[in-house]
Amino acid sequence: MPEVDFWFSIGSTYSFLTVMRLDDWCAENDATVHWRPFNVRTVMSDQQNIPFAGKPVKSAYMWRDIERRAAKYHIHAKLPAPYPISDLTLANQVALLGMRDGWGKAFTQNLYRIWFEEGVDAGSETALSEAVLRCQQDPRLTLARARSPDTIAALETETDQAAKLGVFGAPSFVVNGEVFWGDDRLEDALSWARIGHVV
Amino acid sequence: MPEVDFWFSIGSTYSFLTVMRLDDWCAENDATVHWRPFNVRTVMSDQQNIPFAGKPVKSAYMWRDIERRAAKYHIHAKLPAPYPISDLTLANQVALLGMRDGWGKAFTQNLYRIWFEEGVDAGSETALSEAVLRCQQDPRLTLARARSPDTIAALETETDQAAKLGVFGAPSFVVNGEVFWGDDRLEDALSWARIGHVV
Repeated sequence: MPEVDFWFSIGSTYSFLTVMRLDDWCAENDATVHWRPFNVRTVMSDQQNIPFAGKPVKSAYMWRDIERRAAKYHIHAKLPAPYPISDLTLANQVALLGMRDGWGKAFTQNLYRIWFEEGVDAGSETALSEAVLRCQQDPRLTLARARSPDTIAALETETDQAAKLGVFGAPSFVVNGEVFWGDDRLEDALSWARIGHVV
Repeated sequence: MPEVDFWFSIGSTYSFLTVMRLDDWCAENDATVHWRPFNVRTVMSDQQNIPFAGKPVKSAYMWRDIERRAAKYHIHAKLPAPYPISDLTLANQVALLGMRDGWGKAFTQNLYRIWFEEGVDAGSETALSEAVLRCQQDPRLTLARARSPDTIAALETETDQAAKLGVFGAPSFVVNGEVFWGDDRLEDALSWARIGHVV
């Protein structure tokens, strides 16, 4: 079975498309995907990579492109969503905690729905608490654990790992050390996992 | 027959993929594409959009992604090609002149081959002269015409037009006012031309 590492950050707009379509995609392609939250803001800031801030034309295009592609994938969205989000680090600390506890994928999908369908900043305590609740977890306890030194260090370790692999943006897919950047490269990553080249 | 405007700049790396695959693609899809050279450097500089300079990780990824996709399209390339190119403006002035005289598409294809297969800077007089020669045109006369006030103004007009349409990078495809950015959005543009949405 082909295996793909899915490196994402809550806060990344294009990751919305992947987060929402990935379960169906895995079932259709008989593929296994490992969800790996990291802090894309750290990586991009370290690399002077600022894709949208101060770029209104490119930003407007980004929303339009996401709208067209969401329609293509039959994903509902109310666009533009609030951007950039406030506490990106905390959001991804919760996600990482959830991945280790087994509810991280559902949390991420819930949070993206709250952000992209309900229009609530995904880095706000309101959105984070609601997404945690929808996973039958305790928001107060979970956010406290997400803010603990252990979880802070764990996300930093994952972020370092992403950077070491050559990841510079989200979403990225990594297969046997090969990096594919962007929701639109998911099929290329699958092809790489299956036969070692892109078709 | 679906019609697509192809806005490109010689100097754009991803435009290589489109330039090399577009003739076959048009034949396969029974589509008409209008080749529209413009000065992407002006547009990007006006919009503070600097995708690769000072970004070694993203640049390395870009070449690897182009390599994988060139293989997918069965396009030969010797990578990385010299980048950035020197006289981007002149290269696109020649291309625009050629589009008006009927040899612009062949010139662009020849120049991209010289740049990406033979490794010669596409903005150099050497590469430009050779690409012009391969179109059975006189290099000295053609470069002089490309440097004339008329051609300078014509490229600026086209560049203004691209920016007005919302183009912010190359390659871009425009269909009924809808902008699609990137070689990987060519299929989306075709779908838009045929049925008004992306499938």
